[in-house]
Amino acid sequence: MTDAFDLPRAGGTDRLSARSSGTVRIVGAGLLGASIGHALVALGVDVVLEDTSPAQLRLAIDYGAGRAAREDDTPSLVVVSVPPDVTADVIAAELARFPEAVVTDVASVKLEPLRTLRQRGVDLTRYIGSHPLAGRERGGAISARADIFVGRPWVVCRDGETRASDLAVVEGLILDLGATPIEMSPEEHDRSVALVSHVPQLVASLLAGRFVDAPDGSLRLAGQGVRDTTRIAASAPELWVQILGANAAPVVDVLDGLAADLTTVADALRDPEATGARRAVADTIRRGNDGVERLPGKHGQNRRFETVVVMVDDRAGQLGKLFGDLGDLDVNVEDLRLEHSPGALFGLAEISVAPGVVRRCVDGLQDRGWKIASTSND
Amino acid sequence: MTDAFDLPRAGGTDRLSARSSGTVRIVGAGLLGASIGHALVALGVDVVLEDTSPAQLRLAIDYGAGRAAREDDTPSLVVVSVPPDVTADVIAAELARFPEAVVTDVASVKLEPLRTLRQRGVDLTRYIGSHPLAGRERGGAISARADIFVGRPWVVCRDGETRASDLAVVEGLILDLGATPIEMSPEEHDRSVALVSHVPQLVASLLAGRFVDAPDGSLRLAGQGVRDTTRIAASAPELWVQILGANAAPVVDVLDGLAADLTTVADALRDPEATGARRAVADTIRRGNDGVERLPGKHGQNRRFETVVVMVDDRAGQLGKLFGDLGDLDVNVEDLRLEHSPGALFGLAEISVAPGVVRRCVDGLQDRGWKIASTSND
Repeated sequence: MTDAFDLPRAGGTDRLSARSSGTVRIVGAGLLGASIGHALVALGVDVVLEDTSPAQLRLAIDYGAGRAAREDDTPSLVVVSVPPDVTADVIAAELARFPEAVVTDVASVKLEPLRTLRQRGVDLTRYIGSHPLAGRERGGAISARADIFVGRPWVVCRDGETRASDLAVVEGLILDLGATPIEMSPEEHDRSVALVSHVPQLVASLLAGRFVDAPDGSLRLAGQGVRDTTRIAASAPELWVQILGANAAPVVDVLDGLAADLTTVADALRDPEATGARRAVADTIRRGNDGVERLPGKHGQNRRFETVVVMVDDRAGQLGKLFGDLGDLDVNVEDLRLEHSPGALFGLAEISVAPGVVRRCVDGLQDRGWKIASTSND
Repeated sequence: MTDAFDLPRAGGTDRLSARSSGTVRIVGAGLLGASIGHALVALGVDVVLEDTSPAQLRLAIDYGAGRAAREDDTPSLVVVSVPPDVTADVIAAELARFPEAVVTDVASVKLEPLRTLRQRGVDLTRYIGSHPLAGRERGGAISARADIFVGRPWVVCRDGETRASDLAVVEGLILDLGATPIEMSPEEHDRSVALVSHVPQLVASLLAGRFVDAPDGSLRLAGQGVRDTTRIAASAPELWVQILGANAAPVVDVLDGLAADLTTVADALRDPEATGARRAVADTIRRGNDGVERLPGKHGQNRRFETVVVMVDDRAGQLGKLFGDLGDLDVNVEDLRLEHSPGALFGLAEISVAPGVVRRCVDGLQDRGWKIASTSND
C-alpha cells in the first residue's frame, strides 16, 4: 500500500508533479482508457486518444479525457486499453508504429497476449504488460473517472529483457494514477486473478442463475447476505466471455477444486448420519472462515474498527446533524453504511470508528439525543 | 412490505400500542430471542426469559431483554428460540407445560421439527412455526438489538388446524416487531431458504475456502467484488452445521443444480473452441444477470436511485459539513456508502438520491466547493 501519493483531482485544475512526461497515447477509450486519460489530463499531461468507435472516441474527448490523434504525434508511452481478443494485435501495431515508445497494456489476462506476440516473433523489448485491479460495474467512456485507480494494486509484468528506464515509465504512470505497482510474472498474475476475480465472478453468476426460475415468493425471503454474494452477477457478459476464454486454464483449475469441494459437502448432506458427514460440513464453513480472514481490506485481518449503529429519521438534514455532532465530538468516521428498509420511517447509520473513541462517540451522541441501536463488541 | 408500523425504540422508554398482550415467554436468550425480548420490553410487554445457559440468561436480563421466570407465570405466547437440533423437544415441552399458550418457534428450518413432533404424536393445534429472516453476523444476547426485524419478512407456517385467534397472536407479535408476516407451507419455506440463504452461505464458504492455501501475493489483488461475494463466509460453523443438516434435502437439490451448471461452464472453458463453448460461458453470465435482477431490495428491480460520488477529506468534520450542505440543499440521502483505501488521504462518499434531485445535488455541492468524482447515468 502507498503511504501517500499525488492525488489526481477528478475534474479539478490542480497540476500535481506528474512523473509521466511527454505525450501519452491511449488506444481504446472505454472505461479504463478514458479513466487513465482523465487522470493524466488533470496532471497536465498531453493525452492522445484513439478508438475504433468514432462515437466512443468523441464522447471521451468531449468529457475531457484527452485529444484526437495527429499525424505527427510521437508518444513516449502507449497504453493499450482494448478488449482481450484484440490486445495482442494492437500491441504489435503500436510497437511497430512508434519505435521510440514504451508500450503497455491493461488487459485483465497477461499470458495469452504475450504468447500470441511471441509466436509472431514480435520484438517485445519495449513492451511491458500490466493490469490495474480497478473498474466499475458500468463500462464505457461515460462511466470513466480519474480516481478508480487510487489505492488499488496494479500488476506489472517485466521480464529479463525489460530496460530499467522503460519500467520506470510504466511504474511512473501507475504511481501518478495513485495505484500501487506490484511485480508478478504473467503466469502468477493469471493464476491470481483466476482465484480472486474470474472464479468469484463465475460463482456469483452461477448462484444468481439459480434464481431465474425460482418462485417470486422464495425470492422475497432474500436478504443482504445473498445480495452481497451475487452483486457482481450484474456484470456485462461480452467482456467476461473474452476474459474467461483468455484465462481458461487457470480458471478451470480453480473451478475443478471448487467442484470437488462442492461434491464433498453435497455428499455429506445426502447422508448426514454417515461417519464424518457433520465434520465435512463443519470443515467447509470453517475453511471459509479461515479463507475470508486472509483477504486484505479494512474488514480483514489488518485493520479493525468498531461499529456504532445510530437510528436516524428518514428526512433531509438528519445525517447532517449526526455528522455535525460527530465532528463536534472529534470522532473521525472510518467507514459508513446507511441502511433503511422500504417503508420504514427511519434508517440505521452504521459508523465505523477507531476502537479508542467508541465510548466517547456513544456517550456524546446519546447526550445529544441520538438513539444508539447497537455497538460492536468484538 | 409494511407502509408504516409501530417502531420499537431500542433502549427507549416510549410505550407504543402493543398488539401482543399478556406475558410473552421466550425460551432461548441468544441473538433472536433476546432481540425479540428487547423489542417487546420497549413496547411495555411483560417478557419472561429462559435459557439453559445461566450466563447467557443473566446477560440478556442485565441488558434489559426481559425478566427471570417465576413458578406462577402463565404466558399467552411462548417463543422458542433455540438451536434447530433441540427445537422440537422444547416446543413439545412448552406445549405440555402451558396448556393455554400459543407456541411458536423461530428456527430457520421448518419441516424437520414439525416431522419430529408429528412422529411423537404431539397435539400441534396451538403450535405455529415461524421464521424471521433477520440476523446479524455476530450472535448471542450481547449482540441482540430491538430493530433487527424491522422491515424484514417473517414466514408463518399455519395449517388447517390453526385457529384464527392463535394466528392473530403470532402475526401480532411479528407486526409489533416491525416485520412483515408471509404465510408459507413448511416445504415451501425450506426450499426457499435453501435457495436464498443456505446455498449462498455454502457457496461463499466454498469459494473463500479456496483462499486458505493461496499465496499472499494472489490475495493482494482481491477487490470489492470478491470481498462482497465471500462476506458471509465469516459465519459461525456450529449453527450452520445444524441448519444445513436439518435442511439437507432442499439444499442438496440446489447444490446438484449448481454443480451441473458449474461442470457445464468448466467443460466449455476446457475446450473453448468447441461448438457452443463461448455461448455456454455467455449464457452463464447472462443468466446471472437475469437472476440477480429478480432479487428484491432497493438496488433490485423495484426501486432505483441515482448515485453521486463525492470526494471527502479523511478528517473529522468533513462528513458533517457534507451532510449539512445536503440538508441545506433539501436533498434526502436514500443510501450511503463511504469508501476509502488504506493509506489514502481522502474517501469517496457514494450517496444515493432520488433521480429528480441529482442535478440540484451536484450543482449545489459543486457551488459549495465539493469535488464530484462521478454520478450514475442509467
